[in-house]
Amino acid sequence: MSSGSGHIRSWWGWGYEDEALGDQEIESLARLVAAQFGLDGRVSDPPPISALDLRAPRVEVPSSLAGIASVSDRDRARHAHGSSYSDVVRALAGSLPNVPDAVLRPRSATEVAAVLDWCSGERVAAVPFGGGSSVVGGVEPDVGDGFRGAVSVDLEALSGVYDVDAVSLGSRIGGGTLGPELETGLKEQGMTLRHFPQSFECSTLGGWIATRAGGHFATGPTHIDDLVESMEVVTPAGLVETRRLPASGAGPDPNRLLIGSEGALGIITAAWVRVRPRPRWRAGGSARFPDFPAGARALRALAQSGLEPANCRLVDPLEALVNGAGDGSSALVIVGFESADHPLDAWATRAEECVKEYGGTIEGDWGCTEQASAADRGGPAAAWRGSFMRAPYVRDALVRLGVLCETFETAVTWDRFEELHSSVRQALESQFARGGVPALATCRVTHVYPDGAAPYFTVLARALPGAEMAQWKEMKEVASDAVMAAGGTITHHHAVGRDHRRWYDEERPGLFAQAIEAAKSALDPAWICNPGVLVDRRRA
Amino acid sequence: MSSGSGHIRSWWGWGYEDEALGDQEIESLARLVAAQFGLDGRVSDPPPISALDLRAPRVEVPSSLAGIASVSDRDRARHAHGSSYSDVVRALAGSLPNVPDAVLRPRSATEVAAVLDWCSGERVAAVPFGGGSSVVGGVEPDVGDGFRGAVSVDLEALSGVYDVDAVSLGSRIGGGTLGPELETGLKEQGMTLRHFPQSFECSTLGGWIATRAGGHFATGPTHIDDLVESMEVVTPAGLVETRRLPASGAGPDPNRLLIGSEGALGIITAAWVRVRPRPRWRAGGSARFPDFPAGARALRALAQSGLEPANCRLVDPLEALVNGAGDGSSALVIVGFESADHPLDAWATRAEECVKEYGGTIEGDWGCTEQASAADRGGPAAAWRGSFMRAPYVRDALVRLGVLCETFETAVTWDRFEELHSSVRQALESQFARGGVPALATCRVTHVYPDGAAPYFTVLARALPGAEMAQWKEMKEVASDAVMAAGGTITHHHAVGRDHRRWYDEERPGLFAQAIEAAKSALDPAWICNPGVLVDRRRA
Repeated sequence: MSSGSGHIRSWWGWGYEDEALGDQEIESLARLVAAQFGLDGRVSDPPPISALDLRAPRVEVPSSLAGIASVSDRDRARHAHGSSYSDVVRALAGSLPNVPDAVLRPRSATEVAAVLDWCSGERVAAVPFGGGSSVVGGVEPDVGDGFRGAVSVDLEALSGVYDVDAVSLGSRIGGGTLGPELETGLKEQGMTLRHFPQSFECSTLGGWIATRAGGHFATGPTHIDDLVESMEVVTPAGLVETRRLPASGAGPDPNRLLIGSEGALGIITAAWVRVRPRPRWRAGGSARFPDFPAGARALRALAQSGLEPANCRLVDPLEALVNGAGDGSSALVIVGFESADHPLDAWATRAEECVKEYGGTIEGDWGCTEQASAADRGGPAAAWRGSFMRAPYVRDALVRLGVLCETFETAVTWDRFEELHSSVRQALESQFARGGVPALATCRVTHVYPDGAAPYFTVLARALPGAEMAQWKEMKEVASDAVMAAGGTITHHHAVGRDHRRWYDEERPGLFAQAIEAAKSALDPAWICNPGVLVDRRRA
Repeated sequence: MSSGSGHIRSWWGWGYEDEALGDQEIESLARLVAAQFGLDGRVSDPPPISALDLRAPRVEVPSSLAGIASVSDRDRARHAHGSSYSDVVRALAGSLPNVPDAVLRPRSATEVAAVLDWCSGERVAAVPFGGGSSVVGGVEPDVGDGFRGAVSVDLEALSGVYDVDAVSLGSRIGGGTLGPELETGLKEQGMTLRHFPQSFECSTLGGWIATRAGGHFATGPTHIDDLVESMEVVTPAGLVETRRLPASGAGPDPNRLLIGSEGALGIITAAWVRVRPRPRWRAGGSARFPDFPAGARALRALAQSGLEPANCRLVDPLEALVNGAGDGSSALVIVGFESADHPLDAWATRAEECVKEYGGTIEGDWGCTEQASAADRGGPAAAWRGSFMRAPYVRDALVRLGVLCETFETAVTWDRFEELHSSVRQALESQFARGGVPALATCRVTHVYPDGAAPYFTVLARALPGAEMAQWKEMKEVASDAVMAAGGTITHHHAVGRDHRRWYDEERPGLFAQAIEAAKSALDPAWICNPGVLVDRRRA
């Protein structure tokens, strides 16, 4: 529940209570956005925990597990939801329909197995919980009627950097290790994983692997998939432990069946991951483009150049403005290189050329510097980065002010990129226009590949008081339908969870669903592992 | 059966009949190796096809499939085996115990489905056949007693570069397309896949995907796994078609269940793959190291540098000598960079520094050149490359002269690399020494990763006339046991097939095997797809 420094995790919103925006900050924010969205200035406060009407536990944890169980209101309330807009809206309204019957905190793989044994025997759903940062309903115990109850299995005790192999650049780390702990543990050995999703502060290695998280690298090994060397996964049928290997050609990769399984096949208790020395040289900077499509063409050239920039982002004019990284008249491209091995002048010089060839205007000095952090380099890149890490707290404040705040992402091949971008924007804008709701939709590109890109959309609109959930669901449907129609994936790195199920079922081949269901029956015969994500019993 | 230029595929050995070593070349080769291995100078000739005692077909192909069926002796003989040492030994002896009852050549996914329908209904095993280059028994219809018969499904008619998306750098290509056809088709569009396994001439895209083939790149996306954008796979239960995407986080990756499935889940009829512009700049060269471990340390530094060389190989002193790339006194390191986008001087300069830091002696000029092919650059790198592509033909000639020629590969993390290399060498050497058999075991490193490397072993020894198969099996067991004991994988890019099953069963988690068996039951309910590779009925 709390980090090493003792501050308290919010039960209703993002992160830590003492990191949330204070009253004065919220007032300033209100002044900034009130006119834009026609807000009335009221600020919703989260209800006191004592006022929550939590469903009484439906099942009792057996005495053998009592030592790792909590049924406190705070614990149950916090584990009743993730961190999406709809989660915060409902928590602020005191609505926690799927509160777990208990929170269990196993301290070893053996205790995880004991939890799954009990759940299998008693028909109790087991919902794994890492940092609780899911924005797709992945950790909410919304498991349907087929169960006697549901418990949240919090992995926080399975935390730590257990081993570092400095020769092979590998590290064995507990599944419940939060981002900051993980990097602190590696830093002591001069290493880093350099996997920095926006949820970094409140998400775990096990959660990243279970959801195929995307890190801060814009190219190359940025999905956690590529950083996993081996895994230890406790399934109801037993332990699955894959061999630690740099690569293999022996049959379908066992890791790849478990990576992205979202708790539906078992619980990730530890993994060997690929780490690296901390970077020593950095190069790159920002550039301006007249519009988003022009910036995207430059990004495509960079993605196909083989230069493999660590950072390669595009921010549309409005999003740059909102994040204090521009005046709204131009799109922003951010390019960064980093290396622990060599200076990067040749890389940055060619990237600059490439950006110029595509009509960009270079800002500042892209030259290589030694041992400076990206934040130290200042400029729009640093402003945008600071804003990025703070965004979830600002989101919570906006929700309290009555602003709908939703983000979603996809990936699509380059040939369809512009069409997807404009059709999603148009679908959102016409939906809000029809309702007469003031809204903004912005876009950035967070990850690029030689064959495509991952656009990330942010939607801000005046929430409809009392009808927030209906409004959000309608928006989500419009956006997701547009993404799918344009050839995108329903998620590039936010996972499927429960919110994306309909579109996921459309995206994946039907026979693949049947294969996964069959695999689930082998690993989780009682089907108690996170029911409702990825698969459900309806088809079986 | 034949390439566009009309030359004939060998029914018993590698490649094309008119490319095999001629009598004079074999005589020269005999003079080179006779003393080393104590050979008697006799040369085995393959029997005439008419002399083969082929089992009569056990099943009759229905009239609906007669148009794509062949029961000719040549077709059945060629499809009775792959291209391993044991395959050639048996073919030379006229021993084809698992000859297919027919060879079927479907011309569309629909015809593949019709073949699988018939096989499912009649309990006939369907063994897919691409280029026939398997060295692990993957295409031999050795399916056990549970079937009325077995057919070889040759995909040669599902061939061609169907589509090129030059914006996204993707191409849709038939599963039965041989390497040379594939590159010719892409070259017309200025593109290349740059996937060059040693089997390139006689292997197919579908085969590469089914076996997780490794290409010529030493770092980065070299396993075909990373080059697959989407797949079309015909299973007995129906067509599986994955969405064309640059990346996704939506559940376990459906492609990754099918990549490496070795025909056990269905037949790959087409795929979208990631292509690239043809390289324009090249840099790099060779260096000498006093011994293999010293070269390996330099390779590790290069693999961990982030420079991502396209080529990064290490050849031990003896293998360099055998391949005409050295006098046997030093290990050879070959480093190459290539780019379609930019000159590579900075890359090559840093790689040179790195090699020198680890005690290497640079040979020649590593500087960047424009539009020269690697072969044009001359020197040991070119000598080694020419020898590499010709090796399978030389292997056949050596087998005819009475030499056991086996290659096998693995991958292992760097912390275990030296131990694996020496324990495998020792195991082989003591086995041959015990039998008093003259033998050589050499090693090269073909692929490197930040966390490990893929050593590739070549074994040459005097074959024991009449006992070749027993000798080979014993060698295979000794080598594979040593690889597994040292923490390696049973295969880095040769696949599992039938020959590696025992060690694959040891390597993969038992519960993963059960999950794959369950998935197979969903996709291949009659279990007729390539029985014996990856899974078998014993456990089901």
